[in-house]
Amino acid sequence: MTDLSSVLDCADKNFPSSLETLFELCRIKSISTDPAYKSECRSAAEWLANYLTDIGFEASVRDTPGHPMVVGHHAGASAEAPHVLFYGHYDVQPVDPIELWSNDPFDPAVREVEGHKVITGRGTSDDKGQLMTFVEACRAYKEIHGALPVRVTILFEGEEESGSPSLKPFLDANADELKADFALVCDTGMWDRDTPAICAGLRGLVGEEITITAADRDLHSGMFGGAAANPLHIMSSILAGLHDETGRVTLEGFYEGVEETPSQIKAMWDKLGQTDETFLGQVGLSVPAGEKGRSALELTWARPTAEVNGMWGGYTGDGFKTVIAAKASAKVSFRLVGKQDPKAIRESFRAYVRSKVPADCTVDFHPHGGSPAIQLSYDSPLLNRAKSALSDEWPKPAVVIGMGGSIPIVGDFQKMLGMDSLLVGFGLNDDRIHSPNEKYDLNSFHRGIRSWVRILDALVK
Amino acid sequence: MTDLSSVLDCADKNFPSSLETLFELCRIKSISTDPAYKSECRSAAEWLANYLTDIGFEASVRDTPGHPMVVGHHAGASAEAPHVLFYGHYDVQPVDPIELWSNDPFDPAVREVEGHKVITGRGTSDDKGQLMTFVEACRAYKEIHGALPVRVTILFEGEEESGSPSLKPFLDANADELKADFALVCDTGMWDRDTPAICAGLRGLVGEEITITAADRDLHSGMFGGAAANPLHIMSSILAGLHDETGRVTLEGFYEGVEETPSQIKAMWDKLGQTDETFLGQVGLSVPAGEKGRSALELTWARPTAEVNGMWGGYTGDGFKTVIAAKASAKVSFRLVGKQDPKAIRESFRAYVRSKVPADCTVDFHPHGGSPAIQLSYDSPLLNRAKSALSDEWPKPAVVIGMGGSIPIVGDFQKMLGMDSLLVGFGLNDDRIHSPNEKYDLNSFHRGIRSWVRILDALVK
Repeated sequence: MTDLSSVLDCADKNFPSSLETLFELCRIKSISTDPAYKSECRSAAEWLANYLTDIGFEASVRDTPGHPMVVGHHAGASAEAPHVLFYGHYDVQPVDPIELWSNDPFDPAVREVEGHKVITGRGTSDDKGQLMTFVEACRAYKEIHGALPVRVTILFEGEEESGSPSLKPFLDANADELKADFALVCDTGMWDRDTPAICAGLRGLVGEEITITAADRDLHSGMFGGAAANPLHIMSSILAGLHDETGRVTLEGFYEGVEETPSQIKAMWDKLGQTDETFLGQVGLSVPAGEKGRSALELTWARPTAEVNGMWGGYTGDGFKTVIAAKASAKVSFRLVGKQDPKAIRESFRAYVRSKVPADCTVDFHPHGGSPAIQLSYDSPLLNRAKSALSDEWPKPAVVIGMGGSIPIVGDFQKMLGMDSLLVGFGLNDDRIHSPNEKYDLNSFHRGIRSWVRILDALVK
Repeated sequence: MTDLSSVLDCADKNFPSSLETLFELCRIKSISTDPAYKSECRSAAEWLANYLTDIGFEASVRDTPGHPMVVGHHAGASAEAPHVLFYGHYDVQPVDPIELWSNDPFDPAVREVEGHKVITGRGTSDDKGQLMTFVEACRAYKEIHGALPVRVTILFEGEEESGSPSLKPFLDANADELKADFALVCDTGMWDRDTPAICAGLRGLVGEEITITAADRDLHSGMFGGAAANPLHIMSSILAGLHDETGRVTLEGFYEGVEETPSQIKAMWDKLGQTDETFLGQVGLSVPAGEKGRSALELTWARPTAEVNGMWGGYTGDGFKTVIAAKASAKVSFRLVGKQDPKAIRESFRAYVRSKVPADCTVDFHPHGGSPAIQLSYDSPLLNRAKSALSDEWPKPAVVIGMGGSIPIVGDFQKMLGMDSLLVGFGLNDDRIHSPNEKYDLNSFHRGIRSWVRILDALVK
C-alpha cells in the first residue's frame, strides 16, 4: 500500500466522523448579513479555530470591525515545501423564504434526493461543506504522516455573503502572515456529477452609467419633433454602435490584451457535450448572440463583452405621451478577459460616447466598479498536478474551465499578496446555493476530501 | 365710408360691451374634466345659446352623454352665399395650482402685463376669448347690414379639454345639420404679436409600443453575457436604425405621399426671422436634428418624423446590477404629413422591427392611435381671401404656417363631414393656456373681432 492510498483509506475510515463534524458546523446559524446572528457568526469562527487546533493547527479567531476571521497555520514536512493559503468562508446566506424548505435549514442530515445521497441544509455546499473537504483532507494526511506535505495557512472569512468589507484591510494588515506561494480556493463547482473542474479564468468587469441630456426640459413631439435632438435616439445609436455585425465590440483598443484561448483548451471545451443549443436552451434561447464563430462556452468563459444592463428615458407608463425626453440613461458593463485594462476600457468607452453626442447635448458618466480579469496559465505545473490528481479520483478526467463572472477574493490575492489561486470545488449546478433546500452531494463531500488528499500529495511530487 | 369700414367702426364702438360680454362668459367655471363643475358647463352652454339668440341666431343647447353642445344657425344674405361652420369650445382647463395665479382665474379683468394690456383669467385665450371674436364680428356685421354675408352655423363644444368623447357621435348624428362648405376654427395662434397666421398643415400621428422578449428570465451577465441575446441591444439597434445618416426615416415606403413644400412657402417661412438657433434656443439646444438641409420650421411643420418617446428595460435603480434583461420596451411615434397612410406606416414599422428580431426572440406590438395629416392647399381662393383680409388688419402681412401637432376636430370635420377647415386664431405664445395666469391680449380680442369682420366680408367678394 502506497503512502497516498493509506491517506485515502484513512479519509474513508474517518468519513462518518467527518460528516458529523460538518453537521456540527452547519448547525451554527452564521448568517453574516443579519445582525441578529452576530454571535452565531462568532460561534462558527470559534468552532473552526477549536477544530483546527484539535487536528494540529495553530489557529485563532481574529477580530475585525465585522465578523471575525479564522487563521490557522501548519508547518510543512520540510522547509523547502511550498506554502499554500487555503481560503473558504464560514458565513451563509439567509434562509428566507423559510416555508419553502422541506427540512430545517440548520438541522443538516443525509437524505436521498432524486436518486442521490445529499447533505441537506444551509451552508452544506456554500461554503461549509466545501471548506471542510480541505480540513478533513489535512486531518487524514496528518493522521497517517504526522505532518502535512506543504506548509498550510488557512483563512476562513465570515463576511463573504455580505460583501467582504473587512477582507481587504485584513489582508493588508496581515500580508506577511498570509502571503504564500499560491492560494487554494474551494468555492466553485464541478463541470458535472462525474467531471471535476479547475477554473483558470475569471472575467473582469467595468461598469459605467451614462446620462445624455438634450433640451433643458421635456418637449412636445408635435412642436419640436424633427428639429430637436432626442436623447433616446442618441443613446440608441451609441449602444447599437458598441458591436459590429460580427458581434465584436467596436471600442478602440478594446481587444488589446485579449489572447486567443489555446486550441487544445477550446477542443477540450468542445468535448464537454455542451452545445450552443443546450447552453442557451436552459433559458429559452437558441441563437448565439455576440461574436460569430465562437461557442457559447468560449463566449462566456474567455471572451470580453459589452452589455447594456439597463436603459431608460422618456415616458414609460401606461398609455402614450408624445414627449421628447430631456434625458436618457443607460447602465453598461464590460466583461474583461486576459490583460484588458479596466481603466483603458473605461476611457475608450467614454471617448466613444463623447464622439457620438451632438455639440448641444451633454453626457455625464458615473463609474460602477472596475476589476481586471484573472487569467491563470492553462498549462502551469500547479494546474497540471491538480488536474492529474483530480482525474485520478473522479470517473472522468478533470477539465479546465473559465468563469463568466468574477470572484473578488482571487483578484485581491493577486493584487494584494501577489499570489495566483487554484480554484477547485465540488459543488454541483443543482446545489441550490442561496436558495431554499440547499444541499451538497454526499459524493461531493467524500470525494472532495479525497481530492484534496491527492492534490496535497501531488504538490510535492 | 364703405360697408366694410362701417362694420369695423361698429365693432370698435361695441368693443367695451364685447369685453363685458366676454367677462360674463369667463366668470362661468366650465372646467369640463372635473365632475364638480358639471352644472357650470351647462351654464356656459346656456349663456352662449342665449347670447347667440339675442344677436339673431337660432340657437339651442343640445344634450350629449357628456357636457352639452351649443348649435346656432344664421341665414346668409343670399341663397348662393357659402355656408360656413364655425367651431370653438366653451370648456376650460382646471386652474390648479391655484396659488400660482396672481388674480382670481374666474374674475377676468383688463390688466397691464409686461407693457401690454391683457385680459386675465382662465379661458380668456383658450378658447372663450377666441370664440367670442367670431361671435362679436357676427354681431357687428348684423348690426350694420341686418344680415350676415354667408350662412353661418356655429358649433360650440364643452369637452375639448377632456378628450371630446361626445364629439364624433354628435357629428355623426347631426351631419346634415352641421355640414357646410368649410369650417372656420378659432383655436390657434398668431405667428407673433404683429403677424397673423393661418395654419394650413397639421401633422398626423401613429403611435406604437413594442416589447422585445429574449430569454425566459433575467440572466446574470457573467454567466450568459456574450452568448445570450440582450433585448436592450436588439432594441437599441432597431431604434438606431430608424434614421439614416442624413436624418431620413429608413422605413420602406415611409415617404410615400410626402410632397415637397412649395418653394414660395419655404421662402415665406425663411423670412419669418426664426432661425434654427432661435427656434432651438428656446429649449437650450442649437444643432438641428432630423433631416439635414431643412430648417427647423420646415422640419416641425411639414416633414414627417420618427421619434422614440420612451424606452426602458433591465436594471434602472440606483447602483449597478449585472443583469441581462428578459425584456426591453419602447414607445415610438411617427408624425405624418401630406398623404402618408397611418396604416401603411404602422405595417412598415412592424415589418422592419420583425426583420431585426432574432429567431429565438419575440416582439409584441401595441398600437396607440393613428391619424393622417391634414394638408390644406397653400393656394386656395378661401385661404388667399383670408390671408388678404388678415393682412389688411394687422401691422404685418399674414403668414401661412404649419403645425407640428394635430387638432383632432379638423380631421373629424374632414373625415366625417367632408369639410376642409380654415384655422385662424389670435392667441400668442405667451398666453399661458393650460397654466396659471392665462391671458389674452386686449389687442388679440379687439383685432380678432375686426379680423373676422374682414374675413366674413372677403368670403363673398
